[in-house]
Amino acid sequence: MATKGEMLYEGKAKKVYITDQADLYIVEYKDDATAFNGDKKGQITGKGQLNNAISTIFMEMLNERGIPTHFVEKLNDREQLVKKVEIILLEVVVRNVAAGSLAKRLGMPEGTVLPKTVVEFYYKDDSLGDPLINDSHIEVLELATPETVKQLEVYGRQINDILVDYMKQRNVILVDFKLEFGITPSGEVILADEISPDTCRFWDADTKEKLDKDRFRRDMGGVEEAYQEMLKRLGGVEV
Amino acid sequence: MATKGEMLYEGKAKKVYITDQADLYIVEYKDDATAFNGDKKGQITGKGQLNNAISTIFMEMLNERGIPTHFVEKLNDREQLVKKVEIILLEVVVRNVAAGSLAKRLGMPEGTVLPKTVVEFYYKDDSLGDPLINDSHIEVLELATPETVKQLEVYGRQINDILVDYMKQRNVILVDFKLEFGITPSGEVILADEISPDTCRFWDADTKEKLDKDRFRRDMGGVEEAYQEMLKRLGGVEV
Ligand SMILES: Nc1ncnc2c1ncn2[C@@H]1O[C@H](COP(=O)(O)OP(=O)(O)OP(=O)(O)O)[C@@H](O)[C@H]1O
Ligand SMILES: Nc1ncnc2c1ncn2[C@@H]1O[C@H](COP(=O)(O)OP(=O)(O)OP(=O)(O)O)[C@@H](O)[C@H]1O
Ligand SMILES: [Mg+2]
Ligand SMILES: [Mg+2]
Repeated sequence: MATKGEMLYEGKAKKVYITDQADLYIVEYKDDATAFNGDKKGQITGKGQLNNAISTIFMEMLNERGIPTHFVEKLNDREQLVKKVEIILLEVVVRNVAAGSLAKRLGMPEGTVLPKTVVEFYYKDDSLGDPLINDSHIEVLELATPETVKQLEVYGRQINDILVDYMKQRNVILVDFKLEFGITPSGEVILADEISPDTCRFWDADTKEKLDKDRFRRDMGGVEEAYQEMLKRLGGVEV
Repeated sequence: MATKGEMLYEGKAKKVYITDQADLYIVEYKDDATAFNGDKKGQITGKGQLNNAISTIFMEMLNERGIPTHFVEKLNDREQLVKKVEIILLEVVVRNVAAGSLAKRLGMPEGTVLPKTVVEFYYKDDSLGDPLINDSHIEVLELATPETVKQLEVYGRQINDILVDYMKQRNVILVDFKLEFGITPSGEVILADEISPDTCRFWDADTKEKLDKDRFRRDMGGVEEAYQEMLKRLGGVEV
């Protein structure tokens, strides 16, 4: 068992702690919610426990299906033990249905089913507002080698295939999601961060009801209930 | 000789006319200048003649060096005979030095020499503000096949190599430029539109003085003089 040490950094949704084991961190899920690059701030009661539980289910499932992830084990209500990585400063966004910034960028009505899966890279830099970038920007910024970029896209598409199918069985449309990857001390590229209603768009397959952070972004109410509903559909124990 | 027929469309900087020859158009260069997606409007005295002369020099030079272009001949002060194409709805931007939107997007001081050439694709859609897009967006919008996208990038880089060298001999730094391509009735992808101080950033190599439309965008004055200076350095006859 790893013992929690000093806090390494505090993000908008999680805190990361070192442990007494050199290559393991503990991640603590908070109730804090932000949107629009931090311009909108709030709390979602119980979000920490819910996202911890939800992300655990996704990460375990992906591990089983051969996707390398940082996930080691769920420690308690709010905490996970994860592999320490150096986070690659790219947000990998995969989209099946037009929503959010893609709907705006391409002038497509939200809800348009995309004829092909879209994969986007955003530069993880809050001060720049996480801008969309392309391969030549990534090269100039030296955020990842071209080989790693390829690998991230392949992982993104593989994870999408797995998740789309998994959610469909739970009567949920996976609209889009954001992934973060990191590099382990031994140089392996693995999935890190979280997969949760904070980082995915989930729509009920019948009613198209939003079951994700868009309820918070757009002041729709029923935010906590939506996260609870997602945990329920994933077969998780109510928290 | 082709005879000018009806006006096909009027853009912000040029008018395009059909001719009595099915696969030729006449392009007329106007003095109108716009910036920031048309929000800023004005006139630059003599710009029509200057850009017609400048673009003629660039297109003839590129034709000679094996780049297929729409240029057939300069007809008079303001008009060019060109091959009719269906314009591909992509702006191909090639950059050697950080400026404008790239400097903002990547948080780089304007003037930073890029360690690698940047190639970007923007969706030619005024109502969306010509957004940056990536390969998967292009696929979804069906703006060009993946093979054509590859070809556009190759042409962009080839043209950049030619122009950088050509401008260097004239003591000018080619900071960045925008290209448009089109497809001829026989299916060939060729360079279309114009190459001019409207569509390039040119800096004097010694003083770094701007010799392009940024003088208009940024209300710097000396706009017409800058275009005149560019024509002079290209060895053109003063207009
Ligand atoms: N296994 C890991 N090792 C190291 N850092 C990690 C790991 N997993 C996630 N992180 C990082 O933990 C930080 C805190 O997470 P949180 O989601 O709160 O960040 P954030 O506020 O969204 O900020 P950011 O914009 O950096 O993602 C993030 O920077 C995230 O990239
Ligand atoms: N050889 C050609 N055949 C057909 N159309 C052309 C050709 N060369 C340029 N064009 C098109 O002529 C139009 C008029 O040019 P202009 O530069 O004024 O347009 P613009 O206002 O910049 O608009 P846009 O945003 O469409 O480029 C543009 O749409 C351009 O793409
Ligand atoms: Mg985060
Ligand atoms: Mg134009």
